[in-house]
Amino acid sequence: MIIDKINTPEDLKKLELAEMVTLAGEIRDAIINKVNAIGGHMAPNLGIVETTLALHYVFNSPMDKIIYDVSHQCYPHKIVTGRKDGFINPECYLKYTGYTAPEECDHDLFKIGHTSTSVSLACGVAKARDLKNEKSNVIALIGDGSLSGGEALEGLNNASTFNSNFIIIVNDNEMSIAENHGGLYSNLKLLRETNGEAKSNFFKTLGFDYCFLKEGNDIQKLIELFQKIKNIDHPIIVHICTQKGCGLKQAEENKETFHWVMPGILDKTSDAQTPATYASITLDYILEKAKEDKTFVTVTAGTPGVFGFNSKIRAKLGEHYTDVGIAEEHAVAYCSALAKSGAKPIFNVMSSFVQRTYDQLSQDLCLNNSPITMLVHWGGISGADATHLCVFDIPLISNIPNMVYLAPTNKEEYLAMLNWSVEQNQFPVGIRVPNTELISTGVEDKTNYSILNKFKVEQAGEKVAIIGLGGFLSLANKVADEIKNKLSFEPTIINPRFITGIDEDLLERLKQNHNIVVTLEDGVLDGGFGEKISRFYGNSNMKVLNYGAKKEFTDRISIDELYIRYRLTKELIFDDIMKIL
Amino acid sequence: MIIDKINTPEDLKKLELAEMVTLAGEIRDAIINKVNAIGGHMAPNLGIVETTLALHYVFNSPMDKIIYDVSHQCYPHKIVTGRKDGFINPECYLKYTGYTAPEECDHDLFKIGHTSTSVSLACGVAKARDLKNEKSNVIALIGDGSLSGGEALEGLNNASTFNSNFIIIVNDNEMSIAENHGGLYSNLKLLRETNGEAKSNFFKTLGFDYCFLKEGNDIQKLIELFQKIKNIDHPIIVHICTQKGCGLKQAEENKETFHWVMPGILDKTSDAQTPATYASITLDYILEKAKEDKTFVTVTAGTPGVFGFNSKIRAKLGEHYTDVGIAEEHAVAYCSALAKSGAKPIFNVMSSFVQRTYDQLSQDLCLNNSPITMLVHWGGISGADATHLCVFDIPLISNIPNMVYLAPTNKEEYLAMLNWSVEQNQFPVGIRVPNTELISTGVEDKTNYSILNKFKVEQAGEKVAIIGLGGFLSLANKVADEIKNKLSFEPTIINPRFITGIDEDLLERLKQNHNIVVTLEDGVLDGGFGEKISRFYGNSNMKVLNYGAKKEFTDRISIDELYIRYRLTKELIFDDIMKIL
Repeated sequence: MIIDKINTPEDLKKLELAEMVTLAGEIRDAIINKVNAIGGHMAPNLGIVETTLALHYVFNSPMDKIIYDVSHQCYPHKIVTGRKDGFINPECYLKYTGYTAPEECDHDLFKIGHTSTSVSLACGVAKARDLKNEKSNVIALIGDGSLSGGEALEGLNNASTFNSNFIIIVNDNEMSIAENHGGLYSNLKLLRETNGEAKSNFFKTLGFDYCFLKEGNDIQKLIELFQKIKNIDHPIIVHICTQKGCGLKQAEENKETFHWVMPGILDKTSDAQTPATYASITLDYILEKAKEDKTFVTVTAGTPGVFGFNSKIRAKLGEHYTDVGIAEEHAVAYCSALAKSGAKPIFNVMSSFVQRTYDQLSQDLCLNNSPITMLVHWGGISGADATHLCVFDIPLISNIPNMVYLAPTNKEEYLAMLNWSVEQNQFPVGIRVPNTELISTGVEDKTNYSILNKFKVEQAGEKVAIIGLGGFLSLANKVADEIKNKLSFEPTIINPRFITGIDEDLLERLKQNHNIVVTLEDGVLDGGFGEKISRFYGNSNMKVLNYGAKKEFTDRISIDELYIRYRLTKELIFDDIMKIL
Repeated sequence: MIIDKINTPEDLKKLELAEMVTLAGEIRDAIINKVNAIGGHMAPNLGIVETTLALHYVFNSPMDKIIYDVSHQCYPHKIVTGRKDGFINPECYLKYTGYTAPEECDHDLFKIGHTSTSVSLACGVAKARDLKNEKSNVIALIGDGSLSGGEALEGLNNASTFNSNFIIIVNDNEMSIAENHGGLYSNLKLLRETNGEAKSNFFKTLGFDYCFLKEGNDIQKLIELFQKIKNIDHPIIVHICTQKGCGLKQAEENKETFHWVMPGILDKTSDAQTPATYASITLDYILEKAKEDKTFVTVTAGTPGVFGFNSKIRAKLGEHYTDVGIAEEHAVAYCSALAKSGAKPIFNVMSSFVQRTYDQLSQDLCLNNSPITMLVHWGGISGADATHLCVFDIPLISNIPNMVYLAPTNKEEYLAMLNWSVEQNQFPVGIRVPNTELISTGVEDKTNYSILNKFKVEQAGEKVAIIGLGGFLSLANKVADEIKNKLSFEPTIINPRFITGIDEDLLERLKQNHNIVVTLEDGVLDGGFGEKISRFYGNSNMKVLNYGAKKEFTDRISIDELYIRYRLTKELIFDDIMKIL
């Protein structure tokens, strides 16, 4: 095997072209086997194998700097930069992150998992090089899908003004995670159709030099092209066409499905019926709503599949569905204006990516008090990569004036909140979609959520009140059981439902027969929900214990380990209560 | 006077052309007189008078929807939509905000004060119109300077895909607040030079129809153009060239200075020597640093003047200065990469605009632990317009892992923190530049700020400990005096200096001889600094009182009124302490 000989990019430079082609196949096999075994980004990595080999063949990393946008196409790079064990040895499959990570290797410049950052980062790398009078190639590798993000566009506007080496490879596979959206993509299509010759050229209007290669999976042509532009003395866009999923038939044919896959994707024989989830009941609601209300629109920002909006559902929704591409800022402003104009928008977003749009939530949305519904998915402590943590949405969203951020704990609450939010016209509303299995009480929730900040007492007890926010209501129940079993009294259990405000009347009443209030939240403590309860009781004798995640970037730490680290188990919480009871 | 007859846009439609020209002059005079009297946006409003008149002459607002980007060019619009008293009657000068405000008038669609939002908002307005099968013109009016912002670029990418009426007027006055930056502006220049005929056209690459008018201050030509495109059935860019500051010689010649002015700008005979400020000593530091360190770069995002970077200083800094244009996201990523590559960047930003870049602070910067210095200016409670509040930066910045956010209280601390931050290579650092007059102790601060989260005890006392963050240390001192005078004991006064972490050892020690801890912060309480102190003491007998701003959008409420509302006076705080002492 050629791959056996490859331990650093230097080893590539000794290969003949035919060996490079063989190596590409071996790398592809390794990626397919590994990703099928443990899941991960399949199609983006399969498409970029040849580009990566050609880059490392022609340029001299880490002296030359290669910056991978979003870095979900970095597996081939990891394989040729000393980390192939993580791809060919199943025992090492979990050894490396799925993203570039400088702590692993000096060929990785940045820890990256959010899109559209590479060009801006490359600007900083190039400027530092120039200030220090150093010579090296600075190369940003960015997919066509990532180009629609504001940060990428801001970066392009600045990158083109450099008077020095600056190479931006646009990896055009005609796909974002799903299909692309926006006028820019018509121009990319025109450029592909004219072999890069079209006079109307988005990149050239910004001042870039430009070159085009149709055969972006042809190593020889890539090498020839990269050799030509190596050490170029000005900014250039290298527009290459690659095939997403290249080399794996199923992925080539189902690019969207194979963008990121769960383990065993290739072993599945049929789509077994899956049980209902919060995502599936959300889709059901949306499909129903779109049928009955012509002003209803559901919006995503480049990640429709995550919420179950597959191509069939998107087609069914028709004009009631907008994918704005990777453009969270735009999405929020768009929804705000829809709502202000009498339409009923739902914006679907992941907790980690809602971070892109703080100012739009504040200014475009909440300052204008537009009645949109924002569904925040995946919020909670997890074993995720540091780039995709979902624990910061509560401090981010809940400290903005006018926002109503809700935390349902079961199906009936969720649907009641969702429908209330869509139909009301008073408040910007966020709903933190539970990241648990679907829990159903079987009892319709008839709460009027227009009465803000009214907490629900699930069990009226004494001495200790446990406030379990959203998905952590179940932990509250467990702690309550522990207390009842060991101390023979029933504590109070509270389901706050509202994250953005506190029920001062209820909290005041608790003082009558409680000494301790415990708050449990599935997110970072700093700036979150529990601290507001602590503040409320600051001038009283009530003891308050806040539980949640520590302010830190965890990186693939198992959730069980994190729960122990954060004392988020019924036993540890019980111990803490005992110390002050 | 023609202006006397104008109470609604309908009244414009009755005028002859000559009367419109006269009216433009009258409006200009009103703006000049008012802005010279009370300050405000001078040059942008003077440039847009004719456009506004032509828009309201041709279109039928509010049925047709006009959305003003950033809205610092909305004065003429306000004058012709029933609010002229606010411009011609000095007693009413403060009656209306300086920005569009739907609560004032149904010709204003959104409350707007941050840039680059109009196209995205217009997308929502247009989509709602289409879903409801209504007919109307949707018009976004955006300045060339605002085009560089990511949200605007995301918006353009989506706007061009509409199959219905969508008009975007690009008001090209060849200026942002200062000069423009980025490749896009070379294209605008080319378009201006070719009368819009150049084949290379940024807007056309995105799929827009396009038209050009050189004489953007000529009412007749504007009317003719708008009449042509009225009711157009697809998206079009209307590129007009206007003169920023038009009609006021000083503003025409000093566009940057006259962008936003203080009262009395026209009455000044010379630039009197002004006393040193935190801004001026920052500039001194930066100029010195740029001389001695070739890797030093100072960065702004389109608002250099706010921090004192006038054209002379920018020229002096040369390659050590980057204005990225209105592009805060890019600025943070750029700085992160500069720092990771061994350069020493300082990013200067206003508290209100740092909101644009939460995700970049989190992912591009703090996850990568890049040692940049970010100077956050103007943070604190103020009588500002709701669109420019500066009270949210503490929750925004301080809950991000790895970030070190500092709150100096005087000149010596500030300079020590600044120099430490620029020279260290361990942490991403933010410094909240005091928004007070310059306070000097005369004693050099030799603190090693690498030892994180060490609070400074300014006065060791008993019973009550008052923690005064940043500018509010002076309030802490006043409260302490009040206590000493009235209760005859000395409370402890603490200057925390670190916003991003608490000094647990010190807080623990306070338990020995204190019953009450008071926290004072010049920002919103929710998610802020004080709540973390409350959380720390939650399981103890310590009483904690948190003082700061309420979570709300205030709108030109005087600071004195806000201090009373938030109980931020020594008397009110003393009363609260008495209640629980």
